[in-house]
Amino acid sequence: MQNSYSDTICALATPTGGAIAVVRVSGPQALAITAKIFHPASHNSLIDAKANSLHYGTILPSSDSHPDSEKSNLDEKNQDVIDDVVVSVWRAPHSYTGEDAVEISCHGSAYIVRNILQELIRSGCRQARRGEFTLRAFLNGKMDLSQAEAVADLIAADNKASHDMAMSQLKGHFSSELARLREQLLKLTSLLELELDFSDHEDLEFADRKKLYDLAQKINNKIATLAKSFETGQALKKGIPVAIVGKTNVGKSTLLNQLLNEDKAIVSDIDGTTRDTIDGTIDINGVTFRFIDTAGIRQTDDKVEKIGIKRAYEQINKATVILWVIDSRPSEDEIKDLSLHLGYDVRLHSAENASDKALIVVHNKADLSPTPLFEGEVAISAKKGSHISLLKEVIFGKAKIPDISEDTVIVSNTRHYEALLRAHADITRVIEGMSTGLSSDLVAEDLRQCLDNLAEITGGKITTEETLGNIFQHFCIGK
Amino acid sequence: MQNSYSDTICALATPTGGAIAVVRVSGPQALAITAKIFHPASHNSLIDAKANSLHYGTILPSSDSHPDSEKSNLDEKNQDVIDDVVVSVWRAPHSYTGEDAVEISCHGSAYIVRNILQELIRSGCRQARRGEFTLRAFLNGKMDLSQAEAVADLIAADNKASHDMAMSQLKGHFSSELARLREQLLKLTSLLELELDFSDHEDLEFADRKKLYDLAQKINNKIATLAKSFETGQALKKGIPVAIVGKTNVGKSTLLNQLLNEDKAIVSDIDGTTRDTIDGTIDINGVTFRFIDTAGIRQTDDKVEKIGIKRAYEQINKATVILWVIDSRPSEDEIKDLSLHLGYDVRLHSAENASDKALIVVHNKADLSPTPLFEGEVAISAKKGSHISLLKEVIFGKAKIPDISEDTVIVSNTRHYEALLRAHADITRVIEGMSTGLSSDLVAEDLRQCLDNLAEITGGKITTEETLGNIFQHFCIGK
Repeated sequence: MQNSYSDTICALATPTGGAIAVVRVSGPQALAITAKIFHPASHNSLIDAKANSLHYGTILPSSDSHPDSEKSNLDEKNQDVIDDVVVSVWRAPHSYTGEDAVEISCHGSAYIVRNILQELIRSGCRQARRGEFTLRAFLNGKMDLSQAEAVADLIAADNKASHDMAMSQLKGHFSSELARLREQLLKLTSLLELELDFSDHEDLEFADRKKLYDLAQKINNKIATLAKSFETGQALKKGIPVAIVGKTNVGKSTLLNQLLNEDKAIVSDIDGTTRDTIDGTIDINGVTFRFIDTAGIRQTDDKVEKIGIKRAYEQINKATVILWVIDSRPSEDEIKDLSLHLGYDVRLHSAENASDKALIVVHNKADLSPTPLFEGEVAISAKKGSHISLLKEVIFGKAKIPDISEDTVIVSNTRHYEALLRAHADITRVIEGMSTGLSSDLVAEDLRQCLDNLAEITGGKITTEETLGNIFQHFCIGK
Repeated sequence: MQNSYSDTICALATPTGGAIAVVRVSGPQALAITAKIFHPASHNSLIDAKANSLHYGTILPSSDSHPDSEKSNLDEKNQDVIDDVVVSVWRAPHSYTGEDAVEISCHGSAYIVRNILQELIRSGCRQARRGEFTLRAFLNGKMDLSQAEAVADLIAADNKASHDMAMSQLKGHFSSELARLREQLLKLTSLLELELDFSDHEDLEFADRKKLYDLAQKINNKIATLAKSFETGQALKKGIPVAIVGKTNVGKSTLLNQLLNEDKAIVSDIDGTTRDTIDGTIDINGVTFRFIDTAGIRQTDDKVEKIGIKRAYEQINKATVILWVIDSRPSEDEIKDLSLHLGYDVRLHSAENASDKALIVVHNKADLSPTPLFEGEVAISAKKGSHISLLKEVIFGKAKIPDISEDTVIVSNTRHYEALLRAHADITRVIEGMSTGLSSDLVAEDLRQCLDNLAEITGGKITTEETLGNIFQHFCIGK
């Protein structure tokens, strides 16, 4: 996969409008091209600059583009000075891209940046495409594809959970996990080949079959676990969905407002005020939670409201945590109804523990009726804002968020998830094949496909231009 | 004015949302504080880092804020890694601020930047105030006050003219001009003192008086020229005002649209469509021109339109260049009217040359009536867009823009302008005093005030906290 580019690219790596802006240059001519427009204060040429060094100086139009000006004289003249800058010098392979590279720190003016980029392009650079610096880093073997993708995730991360996931992926934890899987798959393949060689020894085959089967099962479980983590990864990226349900007028919207700390939902004491589901997110201990207020659940003839109630139940299906708000002892009908939709008896905690959907019974208006209404309830007053932080902690606890900073690998990228699903189908066929006595060379073919599908994630297998294009188009320019 | 700070400041120097972001740290503890959270890949301590060097490594929370974690172990752990970064090291006095300084290039995520700043502050930094890095550069003698102000102008510059003005000021051309004035004023002062010493020698006094008077006059002229350049400076910063006048329905709005290359003004062939003056700017040869369309000038009973016509003449007063649009031979009345408002006879080119207001006669619809209508006209068709670029060149030429990249100093800062006006009043009083035979010590007092007023511009005279606050509050954070 080692690659080498002949062209040198440039791009703005920061937005303009700040105190400073940074223009990146990377490629074999990075130093030579920059030297055409950069005039160091020290009068030492940039071309001889040491790796990892900083140089103060002036950007002037290249003499190429102003053939009549005398270069030797330019330093002295104020005219045409584009900016005073600092240039950072990187030498291949010890740079982000693995190529010779330069970063120009200039004043954060759009006019200056435009002129520096223009001069670089006039002097032989090409404007970089989206993500092209990271693409080069990948092609030059500085990182694998899943790590490259983590760079974009890291920049986009806006809370601790998604930051930590991206950082773990960037640090290669997912790659190591895949490397271990690859090892086991290769072992499985070699065992299978061994079996092929000795296929006339019936007793040997039996022992191997068992070993093979166990190993395949182990790989299957691991791939399944990784694929399953995608749901958590997505929830952490987009926010863990929490549905607020309950009878009409128990204070669901007031509770949502308290949680979001803003007046997002329209609050009134008329039954059925909230018909649409309303989203809002908050950060609890570095994790984003997405709250969904729902229409009050009650018998109604109002057509629009009926749709709202139907949606409320749909939200339950999508949610990880359900806040069931009550302000009086719930009727048997209400309990039955909710249990039906959750898929377990809400009175049995063991049933809840076994389910993916956590339930929190929120006893609202507890200041008016302090007697507990339901076992395990959290008593609050949404109106007064009392015990809201306790409720937040309970929500966080019930969401069962894995500790991302530990070794747990969480898949958060759809491309990876899809490759894992394909790999899982492959390894499942391997196991089926072995159980049904499929010929070993056909099983080996499934194994090979499983390896290929996993290799696609890190880009270890030859990756098509199209795939690379799809991945890097989501990057910003200058990364 | 040399100063030294005991505290170390930090701030984000770029906006977030790009590929990378840069956090600045400056002050005596810049390296020591950064070393608490930065773990270099090379395992060499940042504290021993050479000046102007780059260091790749990891930002982790400082052990101060996590007293139970073992620092030696941190590098190995993924947990808590805030980002992979590059740190630039600067040593006093060879940095922007003149202090020890560090720049941390991290991924351009707001989450990461927030965490890095938090860790720096936990480790002993203080969040920098607006412009505080440049303020320190000034107080540490790295630049004078007018140069510091040029930094803010440079960042804000969005065209070549304002960029070049700011760059000229940053490079100290204005400061040198002021230094020369100061020299002359000091010479004047010493001559005055000489005169005091020999005041009993009448003939000596006479010779000196003449010399003194000539020198004072020279200084007066120089200060007046500088103050006068403020108008140009402001025009270059904000755009040179060009008023488009002419009878109704000669195509003024169509011309404006052609010049702006967009449909900003409502175009119709009904007389009096344009009542309000409409602004729009374009860039001609790197200079911003601000076009003002005006109501057609005609006799009208419409009250609103009358106000519009009144405004048209007001625009003439403010404009540097007047585009007089005609589509037929102008009547004597029209010529007289316009001449009245311009203050010179529009038929006499010599009169125009002597005036500040340039006139361009634009013969519109020239495709329909190709015969010239007025001497020196520019024939165009606004509707067809023909000869618009020629017209632009004529506008640029008539605006008589000084070549900013040359030694010409143009004052563009209101604070400088006001100081120059005060200095001008001082030197005028000096001249008056000398003419009326005012006692030399009173004249010397005016001279001293003139010197002080000029010194205020560069900050050479002790500058109050309040003045500094006023100047640097217009900077962005991180500069």
